[in-house]
Amino acid sequence: MKILGIDPGSRITGFGIIEANKLKFNYLASGCIRTQGDLFERITTIFQGIGEVIEKHQPDVVVIERAFMRPDRPNPDAAIKLGHARGAIIAATGSRNIAMVEYSPNQIKKVVVGNGHAAKKQVSYMVCETLKLNKAPQEDAADALAGAICHAYHCL
Amino acid sequence: MKILGIDPGSRITGFGIIEANKLKFNYLASGCIRTQGDLFERITTIFQGIGEVIEKHQPDVVVIERAFMRPDRPNPDAAIKLGHARGAIIAATGSRNIAMVEYSPNQIKKVVVGNGHAAKKQVSYMVCETLKLNKAPQEDAADALAGAICHAYHCL
Repeated sequence: MKILGIDPGSRITGFGIIEANKLKFNYLASGCIRTQGDLFERITTIFQGIGEVIEKHQPDVVVIERAFMRPDRPNPDAAIKLGHARGAIIAATGSRNIAMVEYSPNQIKKVVVGNGHAAKKQVSYMVCETLKLNKAPQEDAADALAGAICHAYHCL
Repeated sequence: MKILGIDPGSRITGFGIIEANKLKFNYLASGCIRTQGDLFERITTIFQGIGEVIEKHQPDVVVIERAFMRPDRPNPDAAIKLGHARGAIIAATGSRNIAMVEYSPNQIKKVVVGNGHAAKKQVSYMVCETLKLNKAPQEDAADALAGAICHAYHCL
């Protein structure tokens, strides 16, 4: 099973693809879609970038990090920006009839690190250990790979 | 100039197309994209529905209502839902290289009705008057047409 994990963001969207065969996880690729320009250009770039990643790697399933909003610090502007990026990613995936699943950031950390409140560095370290990478991927790509690993464990 | 106005919503997305030739505005079409199912299905439906409207009517420009968040009542959940719908609409438009513009709900009401705080019924009434419609369109379609009219005046 080929799993594409995505960490959505309006400036940087991370992605990571793994192949999971029972407990054997293989790293295939990862990277970032960096956007610039106005809102319309940024969202179009994310849509087209994710489309290219899907066309190239033909994943069986796409894992997207669930939007997490701190209830004690509501920030509608940040929420709508994240929503734009997620909407473009869902459109790129759904229009190609590829299955999608969501996990919360805490679920992903809990499965990958064993602690739902793990720091970013711990996530990155465990992604490298699990996928036998010599070099840590960029932060958003590591988060995306963590989402893919979370789903791989979930499917065991 | 053919203008497609869109009133984004995760359950109902309204659209309306007019042709503007200086001060002569012609109604071409309007309607709603109604969604059901889970988040992924809804957003994919909006993306595909707006894509079909664009393919059919070939607008020169797409007008989308700017996201308005009441600062006194922050609601991140509503913001992210609206963001998803807007992201799918921007992806459908931007991937076809069609220009996009935004106006706030207040700007649209001010231009169409003459009052930035006009009620929905007043907007609908003025849309019918401006476009010489015998019957009021559905509410979200009327809001979408109001956006298109606002841009038509803006371009005079």
